[in-house]
Amino acid sequence: MIIVLKAGATPEEIESVVGRIRQAGLEPQVLRGTERTVVAALGDERLLQSVPLATLAGVEEALPILAPYKLASREFKHDDTTISLGNLVIGGKKIVLMAGPCSVETQDRLISIAESVKAAGATILRGGAFKPRTSPHAFQGLGEEGLEYLSEARRKTGLPVITEIMDPRDLPLIMAHADIIQIGARNMQNFRLLSEVGAQREKPVMLKRGLSATLKEFLLSAEYILAAGNTQVMLCERGVRTFETETRNTLDLSAVPVLRKLSHLPIIVDPSHAVGKSCFVAPMAKAAVAAGADGIMIEVHSHPQEAYCDGDQAVLPADFTRLVGQMRRIAQAVDREI
Amino acid sequence: MIIVLKAGATPEEIESVVGRIRQAGLEPQVLRGTERTVVAALGDERLLQSVPLATLAGVEEALPILAPYKLASREFKHDDTTISLGNLVIGGKKIVLMAGPCSVETQDRLISIAESVKAAGATILRGGAFKPRTSPHAFQGLGEEGLEYLSEARRKTGLPVITEIMDPRDLPLIMAHADIIQIGARNMQNFRLLSEVGAQREKPVMLKRGLSATLKEFLLSAEYILAAGNTQVMLCERGVRTFETETRNTLDLSAVPVLRKLSHLPIIVDPSHAVGKSCFVAPMAKAAVAAGADGIMIEVHSHPQEAYCDGDQAVLPADFTRLVGQMRRIAQAVDREI
Amino acid sequence: MIIVLKAGATPEEIESVVGRIRQAGLEPQVLRGTERTVVAALGDERLLQSVPLATLAGVEEALPILAPYKLASREFKHDDTTISLGNLVIGGKKIVLMAGPCSVETQDRLISIAESVKAAGATILRGGAFKPRTSPHAFQGLGEEGLEYLSEARRKTGLPVITEIMDPRDLPLIMAHADIIQIGARNMQNFRLLSEVGAQREKPVMLKRGLSATLKEFLLSAEYILAAGNTQVMLCERGVRTFETETRNTLDLSAVPVLRKLSHLPIIVDPSHAVGKSCFVAPMAKAAVAAGADGIMIEVHSHPQEAYCDGDQAVLPADFTRLVGQMRRIAQAVDREI
Amino acid sequence: MIIVLKAGATPEEIESVVGRIRQAGLEPQVLRGTERTVVAALGDERLLQSVPLATLAGVEEALPILAPYKLASREFKHDDTTISLGNLVIGGKKIVLMAGPCSVETQDRLISIAESVKAAGATILRGGAFKPRTSPHAFQGLGEEGLEYLSEARRKTGLPVITEIMDPRDLPLIMAHADIIQIGARNMQNFRLLSEVGAQREKPVMLKRGLSATLKEFLLSAEYILAAGNTQVMLCERGVRTFETETRNTLDLSAVPVLRKLSHLPIIVDPSHAVGKSCFVAPMAKAAVAAGADGIMIEVHSHPQEAYCDGDQAVLPADFTRLVGQMRRIAQAVDREI
Repeated sequence: MIIVLKAGATPEEIESVVGRIRQAGLEPQVLRGTERTVVAALGDERLLQSVPLATLAGVEEALPILAPYKLASREFKHDDTTISLGNLVIGGKKIVLMAGPCSVETQDRLISIAESVKAAGATILRGGAFKPRTSPHAFQGLGEEGLEYLSEARRKTGLPVITEIMDPRDLPLIMAHADIIQIGARNMQNFRLLSEVGAQREKPVMLKRGLSATLKEFLLSAEYILAAGNTQVMLCERGVRTFETETRNTLDLSAVPVLRKLSHLPIIVDPSHAVGKSCFVAPMAKAAVAAGADGIMIEVHSHPQEAYCDGDQAVLPADFTRLVGQMRRIAQAVDREI
Repeated sequence: MIIVLKAGATPEEIESVVGRIRQAGLEPQVLRGTERTVVAALGDERLLQSVPLATLAGVEEALPILAPYKLASREFKHDDTTISLGNLVIGGKKIVLMAGPCSVETQDRLISIAESVKAAGATILRGGAFKPRTSPHAFQGLGEEGLEYLSEARRKTGLPVITEIMDPRDLPLIMAHADIIQIGARNMQNFRLLSEVGAQREKPVMLKRGLSATLKEFLLSAEYILAAGNTQVMLCERGVRTFETETRNTLDLSAVPVLRKLSHLPIIVDPSHAVGKSCFVAPMAKAAVAAGADGIMIEVHSHPQEAYCDGDQAVLPADFTRLVGQMRRIAQAVDREI
Repeated sequence: MIIVLKAGATPEEIESVVGRIRQAGLEPQVLRGTERTVVAALGDERLLQSVPLATLAGVEEALPILAPYKLASREFKHDDTTISLGNLVIGGKKIVLMAGPCSVETQDRLISIAESVKAAGATILRGGAFKPRTSPHAFQGLGEEGLEYLSEARRKTGLPVITEIMDPRDLPLIMAHADIIQIGARNMQNFRLLSEVGAQREKPVMLKRGLSATLKEFLLSAEYILAAGNTQVMLCERGVRTFETETRNTLDLSAVPVLRKLSHLPIIVDPSHAVGKSCFVAPMAKAAVAAGADGIMIEVHSHPQEAYCDGDQAVLPADFTRLVGQMRRIAQAVDREI
Repeated sequence: MIIVLKAGATPEEIESVVGRIRQAGLEPQVLRGTERTVVAALGDERLLQSVPLATLAGVEEALPILAPYKLASREFKHDDTTISLGNLVIGGKKIVLMAGPCSVETQDRLISIAESVKAAGATILRGGAFKPRTSPHAFQGLGEEGLEYLSEARRKTGLPVITEIMDPRDLPLIMAHADIIQIGARNMQNFRLLSEVGAQREKPVMLKRGLSATLKEFLLSAEYILAAGNTQVMLCERGVRTFETETRNTLDLSAVPVLRKLSHLPIIVDPSHAVGKSCFVAPMAKAAVAAGADGIMIEVHSHPQEAYCDGDQAVLPADFTRLVGQMRRIAQAVDREI
């Protein structure tokens, strides 16, 4: 931590900053410059996290120099984390493809979509049973019934299943049906949910970035899951909120290389929610592969005009098949596989 | 809903749009212009909410013309909602002042702060027992113990208490101690929490706007609470996320007149979380009164440099006393009272 | 400047950083911590401004500790700047009111609006002759003819005139007619324009904040004008771009206290462009007075439904008269005058 | 245009809306719904552009249904625009690579960089002689001297040259040296500059998207150039401003497919300015190729640690060579060429 003092800070004020740092267990160093005095507290900055240094008299600002997360950082764990799921490996050379409908609707339709995405090359089936919907008047998901349909679809196709949890009380139910537990963008800072999902160490977790979360906050939310004991965490970029309205959100693909540098966790990209219109999904999925994503999550629906939820952004099975072929070529061009 | 067709839409495509609208129970009107054909579906647009019109062949976009919320709208309820709490009225001529520490720390300190804010003119005591913290390594609140301190502070001062709920499972506990239940910015789209807090009709609820929530989304979240049965909802603007870094967030004071026009619910402003630095709280609190807020929520701490949480933004009791005097003069200037 | 080195930085890399800092004329101090080594370069950071320290091997990041602007800072000039214009003082106890139409349309209408705003209490007449319009198909302003109308309105009413410059080549023309030269939001980083308007020292300049300009960038743009020699600069907050669409832009009123702390220059607020709808102008104008603005700029039009430009946000003369009365009461409540 | 009336709009108010639309030359159609009355004005909406419909009594809002730009739209010109430059074609199957230093520094260094980027596969040389710098204390470019160095570099290497114009008065000078005229992000709404650069029809123009410009505004700025007569316009996405600070700006790659749909103009992507750190340039350049860009602009510098400007984001010639090889493989994977 670097504590910058105000232009006219008194010796007593400087002494008081020095005292607070010592009290927190760090060794302060005082630097006197021509324009400002600065106090540096090098060491584990987390010790200073709850000290409101900026409130001390004479202090202008406190600049952290270390990342506030630890377990999620590449400094803590240098090698890429890989997550095994049967004979799938997430975070390895092979890029995983998660595909399926936004929400689970009927058993038949789900199985039919699951079969087509599997045939096209998808390795994981996505489908929501609990749906976070902006409006209380919108379809909220089938709940447990939807989870059972997902289990049945897995039995029929062999595809592992990813589905979203919205409430810690649903954890036993979700664990009974899901292979990967998804925490959605709107729950990225539902800290109880993060901790409880993290406390089970059996199932991997995919955490989506919040609509206005910085990458630092995103990694701190991953840190909640890791700190609770679950090391099988993957990060999912799904678009952030900006002023642009032609797309539903703005896909921040630079998150891929930035997260790669800051963290060891696998990185998934969901272009469907980011762009919100099916015609823009394919170019962004391809771009995500080129940017270095470890997995791509895409909404596929056989009858988008009858979808209960987000039909506007679902691609047709035939279009998905074509897209997988294109992504495969790009994967090869960046020395990956699909 | 106005459905704009693509430039070369075929008669069959137009017919299919017309069919879907009829099927949803609305009467479509087809308008042929020199450049585009447009289909208007006037009536209760909520019937079309789950119809993915934009996926239909030939459709360019679907423009809603009604607000997606109903119970929260001023069209639904013309007169301002007021909420009574003992002999306090929220949403009336008198502006309510909620003040207290960010988090409850010790019994003594809480009571001492509660007594000073009461003496200064505050009418409601704020204090967090469950704290949503960005980092898992930060202080997470005292939990039940903190709630008991709040109850004790109410007994001592007579001030009603507002405190945050983070998990529906804490509802009985929170109800036992709080007079107003606060739903924080990070939980604005925790829809289960909204519904369950809404299902109890005994205690009023203050809903904070999410960091990147549009006012439409904010009102849709209020709609969740209203739809569950609780009509005593107040809205709280607390700053949105922008690119500016001199303040923690950017207080969107224009939300006050906009919400006033769109909704009948009382409007509270929390400048403390928005600006994040104590020196900017007073001007923004005064501006909020001038903009027409029904209540102001301010963090006050007797020893901010020892605060467990957000000490940087807490004002001292003496500064709060001075601020109340200034706000009172502004309240009078806009024909309100404090 | 604080240069944070990477975890495994070598002695040679540290030495190279030290060398570059010495070369720039500053005295580096090397701090070795348990987790990182840090090099501090205290003194005039502007000497390091063009040194790309982050490109040096072993460097993780370079954190500035001083503001990058100097002439605009309160450290450079402690006392508030006031600008005299006849017997008006901008930045003093009395708040100035700039009012008038968005664009100058006809001589008669301009004079009639000028007379009404003067009668209501406005002290400066606003009106655009050169209009920056998003679309090339929109009305672009009357140009020189508009400037002549403004001069005539000043003769008739005695009100000094503020009008916008869009091109340095118009400077002689604008100087011949305007009392204050306005640089609009879209030109906040038109650096040539800033320098040339700054090079004339006769007329004060009002600089508007760009739609996505941080306050630091805003002050750096003011620095261009100051560095060119003109010290009579006032800053104008007019709303920033966010995701919210209920208002045209989002008025960042916290800019008022923040700029007051960082700079000595007078601060004007333009609520009209920020909210974009006439019904929201009055509450935000009042809030701006309460927040501490030195001046308020408001669009007033006698026939908004016939305005050539931005009619949606113009208030009627009668509404402006009422608003001035309300602002006056708030000004008194914050120990100012109108 | 769809004009939505307020819930209780009177027949007179409706009649007045109808009158204004007729007066503008369009044929209004009145639709009466159960909840609202709506007036549709189908035809050339640009006729209504300067009519402030929202100010009319009884009007709630006016929703445009056509794009506000025309010449830039794909509806106006269905086929992709291609721009020829010697034997280069921009907007064809082959992706153009623009590379070079941020600013021109010395003749020798420029030629040496130009030779390396040419050897690596670049087809256009970039370099700034006039530099828009946030701070007046930063290096502002060599001006005419820099332009002469660019001309000399073209003579030596045969590479056409792109350079930025900041002031219409420099147009003759820029035209004498540049093959493509660049308008930078900060000047995207410098409307005079757009018009004057557009009025010369000899040299193609590359327009960069402003930091907070919507794609609609971006295309309206392109419309200024097109309307002035120059049809050789290319669009450049270079990152928008968001809340994220790990990257300088946020590269909005979805702009590529969206602009492709809305417009016929070639699309260039500049990842260097968007990410601001050299280590993130390569993945985003590759992603841009996969997303469908027609050209990539990259800052390359042989000695970034000595660069006068933006050294942090420049890649080394050797890294650029490797990147071109990777982009070429991706180009083939999407049926393009480099």
